Amino acid sequence: MIVWVTGANGFIGRHLVHELAGTGHAVHGVGHGALDATEARRLGLQSWINGEIDAANLNALAAAHGLPTRIFHLAGGSSVGVSIERPFEDFSRTVASTARLLEWLRGSAPDCAVIAASSAAVYGADHVGPISESAVVTPMSPYGQHKLMMEQLCRSYARSFGLHCTVVRLFSVYGPNLRKQLLWDICSRLNAKEQVLALGGTGNEIRDWTDVRDVARLLANVAEAPSAQETFRVINGGSGRGTSVADIAAGLIGRWDGKTVVRHSGVSRPGDPMSLLADDAMLRQIGFDWRIPLDQGLADYVTWFKGQAS
Amino acid sequence: MIVWVTGANGFIGRHLVHELAGTGHAVHGVGHGALDATEARRLGLQSWINGEIDAANLNALAAAHGLPTRIFHLAGGSSVGVSIERPFEDFSRTVASTARLLEWLRGSAPDCAVIAASSAAVYGADHVGPISESAVVTPMSPYGQHKLMMEQLCRSYARSFGLHCTVVRLFSVYGPNLRKQLLWDICSRLNAKEQVLALGGTGNEIRDWTDVRDVARLLANVAEAPSAQETFRVINGGSGRGTSVADIAAGLIGRWDGKTVVRHSGVSRPGDPMSLLADDAMLRQIGFDWRIPLDQGLADYVTWFKGQAS
Repeated sequence: MIVWVTGANGFIGRHLVHELAGTGHAVHGVGHGALDATEARRLGLQSWINGEIDAANLNALAAAHGLPTRIFHLAGGSSVGVSIERPFEDFSRTVASTARLLEWLRGSAPDCAVIAASSAAVYGADHVGPISESAVVTPMSPYGQHKLMMEQLCRSYARSFGLHCTVVRLFSVYGPNLRKQLLWDICSRLNAKEQVLALGGTGNEIRDWTDVRDVARLLANVAEAPSAQETFRVINGGSGRGTSVADIAAGLIGRWDGKTVVRHSGVSRPGDPMSLLADDAMLRQIGFDWRIPLDQGLADYVTWFKGQAS
Repeated sequence: MIVWVTGANGFIGRHLVHELAGTGHAVHGVGHGALDATEARRLGLQSWINGEIDAANLNALAAAHGLPTRIFHLAGGSSVGVSIERPFEDFSRTVASTARLLEWLRGSAPDCAVIAASSAAVYGADHVGPISESAVVTPMSPYGQHKLMMEQLCRSYARSFGLHCTVVRLFSVYGPNLRKQLLWDICSRLNAKEQVLALGGTGNEIRDWTDVRDVARLLANVAEAPSAQETFRVINGGSGRGTSVADIAAGLIGRWDGKTVVRHSGVSRPGDPMSLLADDAMLRQIGFDWRIPLDQGLADYVTWFKGQAS
């Protein structure tokens, strides 16, 4: 099957390409990043266009390799912080690119199914306990707002033009090659032999941590389980299991030296949710099984970190 | 006061410029349409840039005439039908232009208040009776979806960057110079002496009809009544009075020849709401008074139509 991945050179994109190529698909990618042909092949990409998600590049891919049966749309902003520093950049990467992609599909490949990666950031900060897909969405950052707008474009093209779109709201994805966010930050400071690890927040913030290799398999599986009834659906890509920031820190330290002391500032960042936990009922209905428990995921992350740092 | 109007050459834009210039503001405009300096002056515009809402044009306006205190943002798609035929065009006009405008304001004029014209189309088709601003939004067309996304961008820039944005959801605006939609269609066919006026729908569809001259005054008044507490607010720009399509047709015919027979197909268009009626509590709180009753508005429209057709 011909499968395209936008943002294939990103953190999740690379893992997804590996997963899809490993199950026999012909995978092509478009997005930003200078990959030469050898490197692209090594990642599992039969071809790669380094550039915008626009009609010119999509036409070029189609002309060279045929129309896709599925597009995994992972291109977009990937940082709350950057979205606050440069909101128009985040808008362009997340919203405008999606508008161009959907418009191209409407005209050129209306039967191609879209699987779009969104984020639990659309839910905002006001939820307690597991959050279902039908919960109120009140994003707190431009990042979350733009992801919501991306979803709405998918919904609009599904409703008005019959495109088949599945939106997967990813929660706290971590794993090998992630060079930012909490785990990266903690390991970097453990590696620098900081005696006291000072972290923001209270430590009690709950997140739904998922290993990127599971997430890649999840995205591929969702595409295999299309909805017969609806052209548009939203699925939580979370495990339904919550773990506090303090427990993540303790888990990493335990696998590192076991001695570092953690101090939380006790001051929550404005807009930072106390809890982001998926109601995983829809995923269970699809029959998806998470295979990498947090213990193993953290151990693998530490192993990867030490390997790349050495 | 220096006031800018985007989309100043549109149906509502022209009436708004007239209103603002008439109350002593220095009004400048940007948007599409070839207006020479004489025509722009006649409309009430001290200057006009024919082009996109982008940083280059906004910088040019600011350099020539100073920064604005208020921007009325009326540029955007203006037709449900066009949004279905060419959704990317509607996206670009409504969403992308707003993203560029807000980003420019964030950097260059963060104290400028924005009054953005949205639409009751954001509410969708599922409402009965007066619709309050907090009602569920489920737009049915790309036009409505993109208007909602425009609102969300305003909300995001207000929340994250402190811009002051007021969104006014306009209902069924009609009046002199409107050369499309129901009233135009009926008058055109009365003018062509059709004996039987065949209309789609059931005739029982309820809309909240507002004369564009009242709407122009409303937008200007909303800007004069800023919210002290919030940086972002949404206000219904409807009268709270509903009138059926059949009664509008009867009203126009009564003022034309009184003899034409109307036949409704009885078949509703998919996605066409049975009722779009504003809960006007917030407008009443501001103290806005509608001055042009429907009877007078329809009479004026017929007079204008006959004048421009002769």
